Amino acid sequence: MSDLLYLEDLVVGQKFTSPMHALDAAQIKAFASQFDPQPFHTDEAAAKATFFGGLAASGWHTAAITMKLLASTKPGIAGGLIGAGGEIAWPQPTRPDDVLQVTSEILEVKPSRSKPERGMAVMRSETKNQRGEVLQILTSRLIVPKRRPEAI
Amino acid sequence: MSDLLYLEDLVVGQKFTSPMHALDAAQIKAFASQFDPQPFHTDEAAAKATFFGGLAASGWHTAAITMKLLASTKPGIAGGLIGAGGEIAWPQPTRPDDVLQVTSEILEVKPSRSKPERGMAVMRSETKNQRGEVLQILTSRLIVPKRRPEAI
Repeated sequence: MSDLLYLEDLVVGQKFTSPMHALDAAQIKAFASQFDPQPFHTDEAAAKATFFGGLAASGWHTAAITMKLLASTKPGIAGGLIGAGGEIAWPQPTRPDDVLQVTSEILEVKPSRSKPERGMAVMRSETKNQRGEVLQILTSRLIVPKRRPEAI
Repeated sequence: MSDLLYLEDLVVGQKFTSPMHALDAAQIKAFASQFDPQPFHTDEAAAKATFFGGLAASGWHTAAITMKLLASTKPGIAGGLIGAGGEIAWPQPTRPDDVLQVTSEILEVKPSRSKPERGMAVMRSETKNQRGEVLQILTSRLIVPKRRPEAI
């Protein structure tokens, strides 16, 4: 079996576990200063008086780290991880000492009606920290090539 | 009227337009090398043979730039832009020469049932390039403080 997964290799319920990523305050501030320069993401002292009560990562930083972890999860998907979109939720803030890991499950696999060479997979990815707290839930629609394109 | 918007200041149909952000290949590769190191995001030549047919930004890079543009849109929201989650779609790839701008519209405003000091706003944000092509549609649930918390 190939090292890479095609649409035919994906089944509902299939699970994947990513490597881990250790976050710290410097990474949180570096991302935020470029993309989300709000006090609760850039300054510990200022963050205390905000909704978050302390420094928290931008949700988009959590999303970006999740992408990095998904891209390094084995086995990979043929053609790469190409998302058409999805739903994202951040049930609680990501904090400076969090170690992130992503567990994913295939929820749906469907061939394309119009494109014989590919299909769509729906995948639910939970990003948790070292205490098992769920920081992000992403349900993504992935474009996945077929190993054997069918005539239509 | 204050420079910052509270829940009471938001109305369905209200629109906001962000500043602009000019992208380039170096930014695309820098983000991708850190968070989404796939060939179609990191290497022009390798990208040609992929689904994208050329260098494209990671969807999460488009999302991060969108956040930056939303954070610098005036007037701002009191307490900052705090998202609980939402839906995201990337109808087409973001390319190296794109100039991004975000137009947003308030779709829904609802006080919290349990928290007298805040509520939720649903906002639809379209990220377009200089040709008006829609690169990202984000429908986000924002946590917005009230100017005058009510007793419940």
